[in-house]
Amino acid sequence: MARLKIGKLVVIGTGLIGGSFALALKRARAVGRVTGVGRTRRNLADALKLKVIDEASRDPARAVRDADLVLLATPVGQMPAVMTEIAPHLPHHAVITDGGSTKRDVVECARRFLGAHFTRFVPGHPVAGTEKSGATAAFPDLFRGRSVILTPQRETLASATRLVRRAWETCGARVVRLDAEAHDSILAAVSHLPHVIAFALVNLLARQRSPGRLFALSAGGLRDTVRIAGSSPEMWADICSANRDALLAVLEDYENELEQVRAVIENGDTGELRRMFGQARSAREKWLVGKRGR
Amino acid sequence: MARLKIGKLVVIGTGLIGGSFALALKRARAVGRVTGVGRTRRNLADALKLKVIDEASRDPARAVRDADLVLLATPVGQMPAVMTEIAPHLPHHAVITDGGSTKRDVVECARRFLGAHFTRFVPGHPVAGTEKSGATAAFPDLFRGRSVILTPQRETLASATRLVRRAWETCGARVVRLDAEAHDSILAAVSHLPHVIAFALVNLLARQRSPGRLFALSAGGLRDTVRIAGSSPEMWADICSANRDALLAVLEDYENELEQVRAVIENGDTGELRRMFGQARSAREKWLVGKRGR
Repeated sequence: MARLKIGKLVVIGTGLIGGSFALALKRARAVGRVTGVGRTRRNLADALKLKVIDEASRDPARAVRDADLVLLATPVGQMPAVMTEIAPHLPHHAVITDGGSTKRDVVECARRFLGAHFTRFVPGHPVAGTEKSGATAAFPDLFRGRSVILTPQRETLASATRLVRRAWETCGARVVRLDAEAHDSILAAVSHLPHVIAFALVNLLARQRSPGRLFALSAGGLRDTVRIAGSSPEMWADICSANRDALLAVLEDYENELEQVRAVIENGDTGELRRMFGQARSAREKWLVGKRGR
Repeated sequence: MARLKIGKLVVIGTGLIGGSFALALKRARAVGRVTGVGRTRRNLADALKLKVIDEASRDPARAVRDADLVLLATPVGQMPAVMTEIAPHLPHHAVITDGGSTKRDVVECARRFLGAHFTRFVPGHPVAGTEKSGATAAFPDLFRGRSVILTPQRETLASATRLVRRAWETCGARVVRLDAEAHDSILAAVSHLPHVIAFALVNLLARQRSPGRLFALSAGGLRDTVRIAGSSPEMWADICSANRDALLAVLEDYENELEQVRAVIENGDTGELRRMFGQARSAREKWLVGKRGR
């Protein structure tokens, strides 16, 4: 297979995801030139200095005029505005993809705002990240060994899907195809719910008497459990709103799960509690083995 | 201050906590001889081989006969039986302490079963651990920089508390005094609740359709959030039962917290969601700064 060669990549939203995508493709010499688009001068200046991008722009419409591949890596909530802005200026060969954490709403939005370009829009979600954000957090190995989910639609051109798949594989990712609905309900369970759980736990602890002493007496278990409560509030509020229905469904299941544990503790049934905890430990171990096995 | 010198240490329950305590005191040359008591031959053989202990015994009554310090490091549920067994055989100078994760029930139990030795019993809880267990998991730096909470009672001899405090300080720990009630409600919030949350989350995910695919599509966030679901089911079922009242109270608060987030998501109030998540992020950051500052 010929080596991947993208002439001009435009990354809209030059943060952790967009920046790491650019760095990985640059390292692989799979891209000619990278233009980074962002809202703040400071972050763009950092991205230029760190050679994450080759040129910076605050005008997405102008930046995409000669793009070959466009990655939309803004928070999901900004996609309607960004798509509306770029649609009239996209060249007729440009392939567009995104890194949004929800897919039904992004597909909906692209169908509405990208017009004729929708056939070259490949919805995507790299399942990777850290609790840090911004161009300074970007690094080329962020996607190595991680999953990227693509949810192409009936209308999506196979050639567009192929290009985006190859770009992510060049970043070291494992590409998985799912339909957008399956994506959203799986991610609600494995990602959005854990974030809600962590944010809620920290808020509960912060409201106790002398929270400082409380935190001081905690151990590594709590620290790990709430690590993701350090994630961007703006981004996660957007994601939770965008994936509202799937998240509400799994949150309700989780509350029922807690109610069951609660009832068992209330009844003092230590044997049943041991069974429940043991079941969780086994499932986690099986999962870790599966992860290593890939 | 003269160097700490304990003639014979007896560790009942030669696992992660008991084994690491022995290793730390041995390394500091603060102990003459360590006898490890355990239920399984296999674990005691490991402990001997790894020089965690100098001699092994499956008979606690015999082991404590010439003890200077006894650490009860069994699961909390086994303490009544162990105390009953050792009480008639403890020398009149021996200091007894424990590593149990709950304190009101252990104090209650010691008051009932240790008889006249109760004045030399110093209830303790090293707030440290990993999700691993057994003598093979023990290492001498487990307690370095970690908190150990002591909850001496009115009757406890100051000299006994002093000895136990020095032993933990020799292990590199920071010793904190609390009353047993405060200990139990703080630990319910920062430790027992997070474990329940993690076990419940894994059980929920394991019950979804194709859990294997689900876990495969998860990222580091989930992995960290559920790390503590790898903890010993037996130990945690015991802890949750022993600290039932404090845990139920904080679990109810947590369910209310989730209900609030749920209502905000249901109302589509992204701004309020952002505020809630932002508050959690700030509290976590303040906490991390506090931790580093110690």
